[in-house]
Amino acid sequence: MTDSIAGDRWPAGGLPWRTWRHVTKVDPDRPLSPEQAQAVRESGTDLIVIGGTQGIEREKVARLLDRFAGRGTPVAIEMSSLEAAVPGADLYLTPVVLNASDPAWICGFHQAAIEFLGDVIPWERALPEGYVIMNAEAAAARVTGARVPASDGGALAWAVTAERVLGLPIVYLEYSGRYGDPKLVAAVRGALRHARLVYGGGIDSAQRAAAMAAAADAVVVGNLVHSPEWRRLSETVAAVRAARRPA
Amino acid sequence: MTDSIAGDRWPAGGLPWRTWRHVTKVDPDRPLSPEQAQAVRESGTDLIVIGGTQGIEREKVARLLDRFAGRGTPVAIEMSSLEAAVPGADLYLTPVVLNASDPAWICGFHQAAIEFLGDVIPWERALPEGYVIMNAEAAAARVTGARVPASDGGALAWAVTAERVLGLPIVYLEYSGRYGDPKLVAAVRGALRHARLVYGGGIDSAQRAAAMAAAADAVVVGNLVHSPEWRRLSETVAAVRAARRPA
Repeated sequence: MTDSIAGDRWPAGGLPWRTWRHVTKVDPDRPLSPEQAQAVRESGTDLIVIGGTQGIEREKVARLLDRFAGRGTPVAIEMSSLEAAVPGADLYLTPVVLNASDPAWICGFHQAAIEFLGDVIPWERALPEGYVIMNAEAAAARVTGARVPASDGGALAWAVTAERVLGLPIVYLEYSGRYGDPKLVAAVRGALRHARLVYGGGIDSAQRAAAMAAAADAVVVGNLVHSPEWRRLSETVAAVRAARRPA
Repeated sequence: MTDSIAGDRWPAGGLPWRTWRHVTKVDPDRPLSPEQAQAVRESGTDLIVIGGTQGIEREKVARLLDRFAGRGTPVAIEMSSLEAAVPGADLYLTPVVLNASDPAWICGFHQAAIEFLGDVIPWERALPEGYVIMNAEAAAARVTGARVPASDGGALAWAVTAERVLGLPIVYLEYSGRYGDPKLVAAVRGALRHARLVYGGGIDSAQRAAAMAAAADAVVVGNLVHSPEWRRLSETVAAVRAARRPA
């Protein structure tokens, strides 16, 4: 029932997004060697997301899309800038930054993009994500002017706002660069009824991947791919596959 | 299909909110004589909403609720302030002001209220509304710092943002005090797939009620109730009943 509800509102290109457990995020503004790209393609990850906060340029996004599209794993573009509006992705993820102090990042850029692009938008491939930015040091926090929750209760309340006030299908706890507290992540997951909880930040080992995969519906591995430890990506996939799903 | 989807996410006290056509809004901060209150109760309106922008005080809201609750017509409280959190209403409408420049009015107050009230919130009776404020002169525009759309395309884009980016079940075109353009309202209605379109502002005659009832899913009559012309309320209900629904 829940799946068909969300599936109807967000067909998401017909992709089984509610079942995804492991997501790999590649940053168009950071180098990626042929070996690293191959590791991503062969990792067994459920979704490759092209996304970042700074230096998003159309050409860089298109180049990265070329390296991953049509090779078996679905590819999404994160629409953090109009520069990212490159055709050809399987999915377009739209960040709604709940705790931004700049309203443009909540829904203002979205309205401007809709007014500007109009009927060109492939709605059948769009999927919004309610971001809660949890790390005040991250670039995403600076750019959006995010007010990071001062307490666990504050984070929970943002997640409930995303789901029950706004109706968003996904809540994304974004620690980018810092590893969070699996207990808090599990508590946020427990407060949601329909929405899926995605966790991102600091997953650089199988152990960390497993701990968060038991707390959240899906985990995002990002920095690791661009780091000297990139060979560990496939270990995180295996760890997530072995982890039990949160109840 | 559409009804069961929205009904599942927002049970709304089991009320048939998707079928409502005529809504009457009474302002806790404005006087209402016994005759005026009786006219509201006997008008045949589908929903009585207790709501306003200024001077919302708990005691005033409770007093108005006492005058309308349990008398046949469902009563909603509009949650524009924590002061409005009075138990006993059939429904609690939550404004999400899309074009506010102050992010608190988009989703910030909501998060704070959820953190503060926690499990006390009767979610099964809650229903969010995506407001697009269309009249820069209105108190609601001043309080929220609303950026009123400069073009019809801008208004349409806000409605689409509310529905397809945020997932809101209701879009509310708020002209408060000014009568809008039925053609624009019809165009906004045509851009929505699931969400219901509510129109409010300047409905002070049967003719105006009929024109907007043919363009929007539901119309809100507010100021008229508190004006010397309050006897016309029942005429607006009759006009809405006689109007054809938008396709």
